[in-house]
Amino acid sequence: METSTKTNFPLVVIIGAGFGGLEVAKGLADKPVEVLMLDKHNYHVFQPLLYQVATGSLEAESIAFSVRKNFSSQKNFRFRIAEVMGLNAETKTLDTTIGGIKYDYLVIATGSTTNFFGNKQIEKFAMPMKSIPEALNLRYLVLQNLEEAVLLKTREEREPYLNFVLVGAGPTGVELAGALAELRNHVLTKDYPELDKEHMRVYLVDFMPKVLGPFSEQASAKAKDFLVKMGVDVLLNKKVESYDGEVIKFEDGQTIRTRNVIWSAGVMGVIPKGVPEGSIIRGNRIQTDAINRVEGAENIFAIGDVAAVITEETPKGHPGVAQVAIQQGKQVAKNIVHIIKGEPTEPFKYFDKGSLATIGRNKAVADLGKIKFQGFFAWLIWMFVHLVSLLGFRNKIIVFINWIGSYINYNGGTRLIIRRFVRDNVPADARHLPKTES
Amino acid sequence: METSTKTNFPLVVIIGAGFGGLEVAKGLADKPVEVLMLDKHNYHVFQPLLYQVATGSLEAESIAFSVRKNFSSQKNFRFRIAEVMGLNAETKTLDTTIGGIKYDYLVIATGSTTNFFGNKQIEKFAMPMKSIPEALNLRYLVLQNLEEAVLLKTREEREPYLNFVLVGAGPTGVELAGALAELRNHVLTKDYPELDKEHMRVYLVDFMPKVLGPFSEQASAKAKDFLVKMGVDVLLNKKVESYDGEVIKFEDGQTIRTRNVIWSAGVMGVIPKGVPEGSIIRGNRIQTDAINRVEGAENIFAIGDVAAVITEETPKGHPGVAQVAIQQGKQVAKNIVHIIKGEPTEPFKYFDKGSLATIGRNKAVADLGKIKFQGFFAWLIWMFVHLVSLLGFRNKIIVFINWIGSYINYNGGTRLIIRRFVRDNVPADARHLPKTES
Repeated sequence: METSTKTNFPLVVIIGAGFGGLEVAKGLADKPVEVLMLDKHNYHVFQPLLYQVATGSLEAESIAFSVRKNFSSQKNFRFRIAEVMGLNAETKTLDTTIGGIKYDYLVIATGSTTNFFGNKQIEKFAMPMKSIPEALNLRYLVLQNLEEAVLLKTREEREPYLNFVLVGAGPTGVELAGALAELRNHVLTKDYPELDKEHMRVYLVDFMPKVLGPFSEQASAKAKDFLVKMGVDVLLNKKVESYDGEVIKFEDGQTIRTRNVIWSAGVMGVIPKGVPEGSIIRGNRIQTDAINRVEGAENIFAIGDVAAVITEETPKGHPGVAQVAIQQGKQVAKNIVHIIKGEPTEPFKYFDKGSLATIGRNKAVADLGKIKFQGFFAWLIWMFVHLVSLLGFRNKIIVFINWIGSYINYNGGTRLIIRRFVRDNVPADARHLPKTES
Repeated sequence: METSTKTNFPLVVIIGAGFGGLEVAKGLADKPVEVLMLDKHNYHVFQPLLYQVATGSLEAESIAFSVRKNFSSQKNFRFRIAEVMGLNAETKTLDTTIGGIKYDYLVIATGSTTNFFGNKQIEKFAMPMKSIPEALNLRYLVLQNLEEAVLLKTREEREPYLNFVLVGAGPTGVELAGALAELRNHVLTKDYPELDKEHMRVYLVDFMPKVLGPFSEQASAKAKDFLVKMGVDVLLNKKVESYDGEVIKFEDGQTIRTRNVIWSAGVMGVIPKGVPEGSIIRGNRIQTDAINRVEGAENIFAIGDVAAVITEETPKGHPGVAQVAIQQGKQVAKNIVHIIKGEPTEPFKYFDKGSLATIGRNKAVADLGKIKFQGFFAWLIWMFVHLVSLLGFRNKIIVFINWIGSYINYNGGTRLIIRRFVRDNVPADARHLPKTES
C-alpha cells in the first residue's frame, strides 16, 4: 500500500494530471504535505489543441507534456501511472491498478469524457475526441477514408468516405469544422489529385439554433458566417436520431451517408467508483461546496470538469473550461494548507477571463468581457493565449513554428497514418488497406 | 485492375517508398512513363534517425514524410497504400490488397526487415526497430519498464526492468546504446527520483570482436571507447543462445535478467512472393545484373537493401545503406528511360561517400574515404549530413530545434507513453499499468 513515506506530513493524492490537477500539485510545492499524483497516462494534455492533432496540424507530442518532467524539481511530489478502481471514504483508501493507496486528502480531478447520452449505437460508430489516442484515431480514420475514396470509381461510392459530419457546434466542433474545411479547400486536391474538392463535404450539426452556444450572439453569428464562407454546411436546430456507421439520420428525416461522424455534442464527468451517489448530479458531476469539498466527505475535493460548485450564486456550477479547473486547483491547494494549519478556508470565486474560438487558419472570435471582436486580430490573441498556456518551452517553439508554417503555406502539417485505425464494426470488405502494423 | 490510364505511356510500378523507391520516382518525372508507387504506409521514413524516435528524442512525424505531399507536383505520379501479395512475371501483374495491377516495368524497392536468423523464441520476445511503429513500441516499452521498476521495492525485483541489452553493435546498436546511456546518465534520476542511476545497465553485445564492424579500425576502437566512457557494457565475441522474455543467455554461459532486449543483429530483404526462387541469395536478397535487373525477368528491377548487384567487381553486392539505395534508384530511373528509348543502358557504379555513426549527444565517428576522425567535429558533420538529407523543410527545422534543445539541456525529448505497448507474451502479473487506451 502506498502511503505517506518520506515524512510525517499528510499525503495529498490527486487523481488526474489535467489543468486542475497540475495546479493543485504546484500549489502544494514546499508545503508541509506529500503529493502523489495518479493518471492513466504519464502526460498532461493541452486539450484546447486536440483538434489540431486530429487534423494533423500538430504532433501529439507537442500538446502533451511529461508529468514527471514537469515536477522533476518539486521535492514533495511523486507520480504513478494508475487507474483508480474504487474509493473508500471511510477508510480513506483508493483501490488502484498499482494496489491500495491510503490518502489523507484526496483531490478528484478526473475531468470529463464524451457523453453519448446513452445512445449505444452512436457510441459504437461515432468518433469521440477527448484524448490523444482518440484524436490520433480520428486523424488516421480521416486519412484512411481519403485513401479509400481514391480506390473507388464513382461519386456515389465515394460519398460516405468524403462526407464529414461533426455533431456538436461548441468550440471543438467549430474548430474542427474550420480545420477540415481548410483541408478540403487547400490540401485535398494537392495530395489526392484523383479526388474532386466539391465532393468532400463538411457538415456541422447542432440541436441548438446557434453555433458556439455559450458565446455572445455577435461571436456566434460571426463564427457561423466564417464557417459558411469556408464552405461548411451548418445545420442548426437539428437533432441526431441514429447512426449505424453508414448513414446518419436526423429527427426531421434528413439523412447523410458518411463513415466520418465526429461526436462533440456533450461531456460528462469521470467519477471514480465509491463517490457517494447522493453527491452526483446532472452531467455526472460531483456536487461540492464553495471550497470544492465533496458533500459529507471532509477530506475529499473535486475540481474542474468533474465538479460542480453549487452555491446560491452558482446554482448550476461553472462552465467546463480550463480556466475553471485551473482556478479551482489553485484555490484547493491553498485551502488544503489552510485546513492543515487550522486556518479559515476561502471560498472559490471564478474570474471569467473570457472565451476564444478559432475558425480556420487566421480567424477567431473573442468574447473578453464587454469587449467582443472577431477576425484576424482575435486570431492573434487566440494564438498568443494558447502559446503562453502550453506547457514546455520546446512545445511552445514547435507549435509556433507549425503555425507559422501553416500560415505561410496551407499545405502544412503531417498527414501520416502511423497506426492504422481499425473500427471493429466496419464490414471487412470496405477495408482495402493493409492490416499489418510494422 | 490498375493499369496505365491517363496516357499511352508504359506504367512503372515501384514497390516501396524508401530511399531507393523515391529516387526512381523522382528520376522519372517528366519522362514518357506513368509512375505508380505502392507502400504499406503513406510515408517515407528516414531510417537513420529511427533510434531517436525510439528514445523519445524526436517525434515520429519529424523523421517521416508524406509520399503524396512529396510528389504532389509530379504529374505522372500516383500513389496507393497497398501490400503486394504476389507477383506474376509472365503476365506482368501484381496481386495486392487493392486488387490486381498490370505493370510494364516493376521496381522492387521493398527494403529489409529484422533478421532473427530463424530463432522463433528471440523473435517473439526481442524488440526489433526497423519501422516507426516498432520504434514507438520500443519507446513505450522502455518507459513502461521504468514505471514498473518504480513500483517494485528491491534492486533484485527491479533488475530485469532496468537492464537493457542491445544485440548487434552496428550503427543502430551503437547509436541506441549511446542514447540509452545518456538517458541513464542525465535523465533517469530527474524523472524517476525513486530509482538509482547505477541500477540501470546498458549492454551492447556482438558476436564479432569489434563494434561498428564495417567501419575502420580507428573508428571502431574510438566508438567503443566513447561507449565505455559513457558507462555502456560492451560485450564482444559474444553470441546469444536464447531469450525467453526474462533471461538472455549467451553461448559462454553468461546470463542477464532483462525485459528489454533490442535486436539489431541482422537484416534480410523483404521479397514479394513470385520472385523467381533462383535469384534469391543469402540474406534474402534478389540477385541482379549490373543494371539492377532481376536475372531472367527483363522488366523487373530490384534496388537497395532487397537487391544484390552481383558482378565480378562486387561478388557480394553492396552494403545495405541508404546511399546504395539512392544511387541505384537514380540509375534505374535513367536506365528505364534508356530502355524505352532504345538507348544503351549504363551499369550501376557505387560511389562510397563514407560512413558516420553518432555516439551520444555530441560525439561521432566519421570514415570519409582516407579521412577518418572522431569526436565533436565528426558529430557536427553527422548532424549536418542528416539534416540536409531529411525530407521536408519543416522536418529539418523541427529536428534541428530538438537537437539544439538536447545539446543545451540533456533533459530534452518527449517521454510520453501515447499508445501502451502490450507484449502478448509477458505474464499478466508483471503488468501493473492500466490497460485502457483512451
